[in-house]
Amino acid sequence: METEIGDPRRELSRLIERGDDEGLRRVLEVIPASDLALVLSRLSNDERTALLGRLPVETAADLIEYLPNVHAVSAIENLEPSSAAAIIEQLPSHLQGDLIGELDDADARNILDRMPPEDAASARQLSRYEDDEAGGLMITEMLVYDERQTVASVIADLRIHADAYRDYEIQYGYVRDEQGCLSGVLRMRDLLLAPHDRTLDRLMIRHPSSVADTTSLEELAEFFDGNNFLGVPVVDRERRPVGVVLRSAVHVARAERQGSDLLKMQGIVGGEELRSFPLLTRSRRRLAWLSVNIVLNLFAASVIAAFQDTLSSVIALAVFLPIISDMSGCSGNQAVAVTMRELSLGLVRADELLRVWLAEVSIGLMNGAALGVMIGLIAWLWQGPMMLGLVVAAALAINTVVAVSLGGILPLLMRRLNLDPAIASGPILTTVTDMCGFFWVLGLASLVLDRLT
Amino acid sequence: METEIGDPRRELSRLIERGDDEGLRRVLEVIPASDLALVLSRLSNDERTALLGRLPVETAADLIEYLPNVHAVSAIENLEPSSAAAIIEQLPSHLQGDLIGELDDADARNILDRMPPEDAASARQLSRYEDDEAGGLMITEMLVYDERQTVASVIADLRIHADAYRDYEIQYGYVRDEQGCLSGVLRMRDLLLAPHDRTLDRLMIRHPSSVADTTSLEELAEFFDGNNFLGVPVVDRERRPVGVVLRSAVHVARAERQGSDLLKMQGIVGGEELRSFPLLTRSRRRLAWLSVNIVLNLFAASVIAAFQDTLSSVIALAVFLPIISDMSGCSGNQAVAVTMRELSLGLVRADELLRVWLAEVSIGLMNGAALGVMIGLIAWLWQGPMMLGLVVAAALAINTVVAVSLGGILPLLMRRLNLDPAIASGPILTTVTDMCGFFWVLGLASLVLDRLT
Repeated sequence: METEIGDPRRELSRLIERGDDEGLRRVLEVIPASDLALVLSRLSNDERTALLGRLPVETAADLIEYLPNVHAVSAIENLEPSSAAAIIEQLPSHLQGDLIGELDDADARNILDRMPPEDAASARQLSRYEDDEAGGLMITEMLVYDERQTVASVIADLRIHADAYRDYEIQYGYVRDEQGCLSGVLRMRDLLLAPHDRTLDRLMIRHPSSVADTTSLEELAEFFDGNNFLGVPVVDRERRPVGVVLRSAVHVARAERQGSDLLKMQGIVGGEELRSFPLLTRSRRRLAWLSVNIVLNLFAASVIAAFQDTLSSVIALAVFLPIISDMSGCSGNQAVAVTMRELSLGLVRADELLRVWLAEVSIGLMNGAALGVMIGLIAWLWQGPMMLGLVVAAALAINTVVAVSLGGILPLLMRRLNLDPAIASGPILTTVTDMCGFFWVLGLASLVLDRLT
Repeated sequence: METEIGDPRRELSRLIERGDDEGLRRVLEVIPASDLALVLSRLSNDERTALLGRLPVETAADLIEYLPNVHAVSAIENLEPSSAAAIIEQLPSHLQGDLIGELDDADARNILDRMPPEDAASARQLSRYEDDEAGGLMITEMLVYDERQTVASVIADLRIHADAYRDYEIQYGYVRDEQGCLSGVLRMRDLLLAPHDRTLDRLMIRHPSSVADTTSLEELAEFFDGNNFLGVPVVDRERRPVGVVLRSAVHVARAERQGSDLLKMQGIVGGEELRSFPLLTRSRRRLAWLSVNIVLNLFAASVIAAFQDTLSSVIALAVFLPIISDMSGCSGNQAVAVTMRELSLGLVRADELLRVWLAEVSIGLMNGAALGVMIGLIAWLWQGPMMLGLVVAAALAINTVVAVSLGGILPLLMRRLNLDPAIASGPILTTVTDMCGFFWVLGLASLVLDRLT
């Protein structure tokens, strides 16, 4: 597994510069599929563009599928529109829509003008759908027949187009009525057993499940949770069949969303970041989030500033402020993570604040007591009078209850306010628990100041 | 969407208590599939067990598929072994293996003894596979034929077993040679076009792709990234076909792993937590993680303790210590998140420390400068002499470089040490950046103490 990836990358660069198309094809063939994403991502944008332009369009289209979306879009933009059009035609329909949708309008028009009018119309149509609705997730490679067709004519069609259909990911055909509306599905294997002169309306399964092209990812996920199907036909507003959403496409889209939640919770907002992006873009994006955080931090710090007199009389308190802040953040984030998970599994609703709060308060009381005793003993033994231990213990115990209560319900509140729980929960939680935590420590200390000094 | 879920749950509880089987079936039928997980998760363990025992086994098996694994296992454990066996028989094979594998040995033996010997042997075999290897992810519902069979005999088999095969998620059959080894795949639709007396060895695609039953999830993911297949046959050590891994199963398993990474990064370690778990279990699990954190926090706090004299001369420094700690943590976690993502996309290797470090150092210098200027101005204008601003600015700038450098390479180091990057990166990062951050602030302040007071 520890082969050197620098070599094939350098080899590719050299062959691109030399214009050795035959050599390029040979090297690409020996790069294992598992390394291809890595090797391609290390080429410069110009090299990727040159590489795609030099390869046969089928090979270029295969490679495009290995590239992260941002790289694919920039390579397509830099190619001659006619080469770009030829490559895009070879892509599966949903990728066509994705890529065209992310190009500049001018680039998109240039490329679509060079595609066969029918394909261009279909790609344009697909590019209008959002990535996370049925229209954006579906494939349009599907078999559609008319109700009055016979089994023999379908078998003839399959025979004639065997090559074209080879890569279709379907085991069903779809049947439309005279108005062109979806009226049935056809299990392809039923064709094996049926008399050749039977018409499809007598063979098909009527009243098939279908979803509208505007169905959301959540609704699709629920649909597949509740049904055992591998795919579901998508219909437009006139109930005409326009594509098929596969169960796997829904799973991939959900996995991608979870991945981006993970990034957002850690402060990578506004889309994926790859280390191959320009430095300024990466820096600016991260900084946007950090700047908000620094302002939020000032609110918390202002609590400390307000108690400077207390703090300077009992300087040992300063040792424990960051501990209270960090521990409360950890407890609160645990509650956030559990709620986010229950939300994504459909085990809690956004309006069940009370139920979640009760579940968290009880855990907060137990863990708050345990953590309070720990930190209290440490403070007493390490830094000073027993009263210091009591102050710190009480502050952490109370603040743990605050943190888990808030952490548990914050994602629900965000969801109800139509804010993204993954982005917003963390910073709000930290700010509030810091402010409260510092206030408990320093406020309690002020009350018993004479017993502390 | 805002229907009250309490009602169907209470209704179910009432019917379970009353023993009204007919009523139970009726209520379950009207609960929308999207609410089923929610409603079932709110029943008590005893109610869920009673409900499953009262339903026809097919319905009970359908419901089991809606339950999170922990609930399914505890319901199965509490059922009569003969009912449990009857329900398990109805489950898809990979779920059978999962559930049996998680039962106590005694419970598992009790249940397997009550299943038909052949089914029991197959479930026992499946339960030995890990959840994240091909054997644990595969389904065993597959069509396997012998090379010498004719097209006519396959069509006859399909006709006879049409009902049993109805729910098979496959569009391929698999062909074995005389030794029972996998020798080809059969596109079912090719049967349509072939003469009935042709033998399968002349119709099948030879040298089919296959994976070993011990293939890991990562390798499967790479396989499907590099191939357009919907599924791949799984062979045992003797190359006999034992199951099929579907692309969708790999995607689901990856999504679950990402979800559990998200939980682990927030300190929910050791498996999923649902709010329906016993309070003590939830509290203990969370506390285990928090206790480690409190100890790590002491290391950081000891830096502050060592500089108490400096701190008491310039108490304003205490206002900025938590800000430095929080901001460095944020910057570092951004770098952790980007590396984790690049790792999961296969865009970076665990041994590329230098490359990642260079990419992060440059971002650290830029963002460190920007954040340093911000916090420096704030410190100067809000709390005091310009030198205070310079100290705080320098500390945050330097520490941002430390944080992103460490955050970028930590997941790679963890991966190389075979530790879980999702669990270990966060606490190590926070501890080190806190210690360094406090040291820069207080150490620099000590050097210029006369200019600060």
